[in-house]
Amino acid sequence: MDKFLREALDEARKGYCEGGIPIGSVLVKDGRVIGRGHNQRVQKDDPMAHAEIDCLRQAGRIGDYHGTALYSTLMPCHLCAGAVIQFGIKKVFAGESRNFAGAQDLMRRLGVEVIDLDDPECAALMRRFISEKPELWNEDIGSSA
Amino acid sequence: MDKFLREALDEARKGYCEGGIPIGSVLVKDGRVIGRGHNQRVQKDDPMAHAEIDCLRQAGRIGDYHGTALYSTLMPCHLCAGAVIQFGIKKVFAGESRNFAGAQDLMRRLGVEVIDLDDPECAALMRRFISEKPELWNEDIGSSA
Repeated sequence: MDKFLREALDEARKGYCEGGIPIGSVLVKDGRVIGRGHNQRVQKDDPMAHAEIDCLRQAGRIGDYHGTALYSTLMPCHLCAGAVIQFGIKKVFAGESRNFAGAQDLMRRLGVEVIDLDDPECAALMRRFISEKPELWNEDIGSSA
Repeated sequence: MDKFLREALDEARKGYCEGGIPIGSVLVKDGRVIGRGHNQRVQKDDPMAHAEIDCLRQAGRIGDYHGTALYSTLMPCHLCAGAVIQFGIKKVFAGESRNFAGAQDLMRRLGVEVIDLDDPECAALMRRFISEKPELWNEDIGSSA
């Protein structure tokens, strides 16, 4: 497995062990992880703390996102794609999109290179979580109504 | 001025007084404010804490966003528009878009009703801030490179 995706998956597993939504993310620049995070909806009662948002928050006020790549274990949703677009992150690696197609079309249309690594471990963890806690998953993507 | 926009502007002014970026937001449901916030980039060193994100975070895990309307003193950027789209908020009121056009076209294309209130007080506060701290403004919208 890609070494950065492995780090994102480590974050996702941390989230799973905490009783949270197992999606993890790392931000990479010049071959180095400069931010990492995982979904914190449950842990921090924060509906905006998707994995990618938590990761970008943790990376801090870097100001310039040129040359960065965002890894996530799952294809980013519109919220996280919005962050990618607004801050000019030009490359996104997704662990999988089997369980959620996300906003990949929008990102591509707006010039982001989106690479779907279609990783079976990422897909298996997410599939397991969705089958265990479907209400929580629906809440996280705004489909709870 | 619209009473909810007034509350969003109160939030923006709080931010200005704290030395932050003066953008405020409230979330409204059934004629009642259920969340409020303002940009916290400076105050919390959090690059993801745009006003609308801070407001939605503060509203908590409401799960179902049907019937809500999001007010912001400034037209939402792609990050905040992404939250609107992902969580199914169908109505957005912007205090102004003179200083920043934001992602209004995207929101409209994806079925969000966007109302630009074109308020002179909102526009004046933002214009003043941008002229005082242009670097901070550019950082907040990802144009610092």
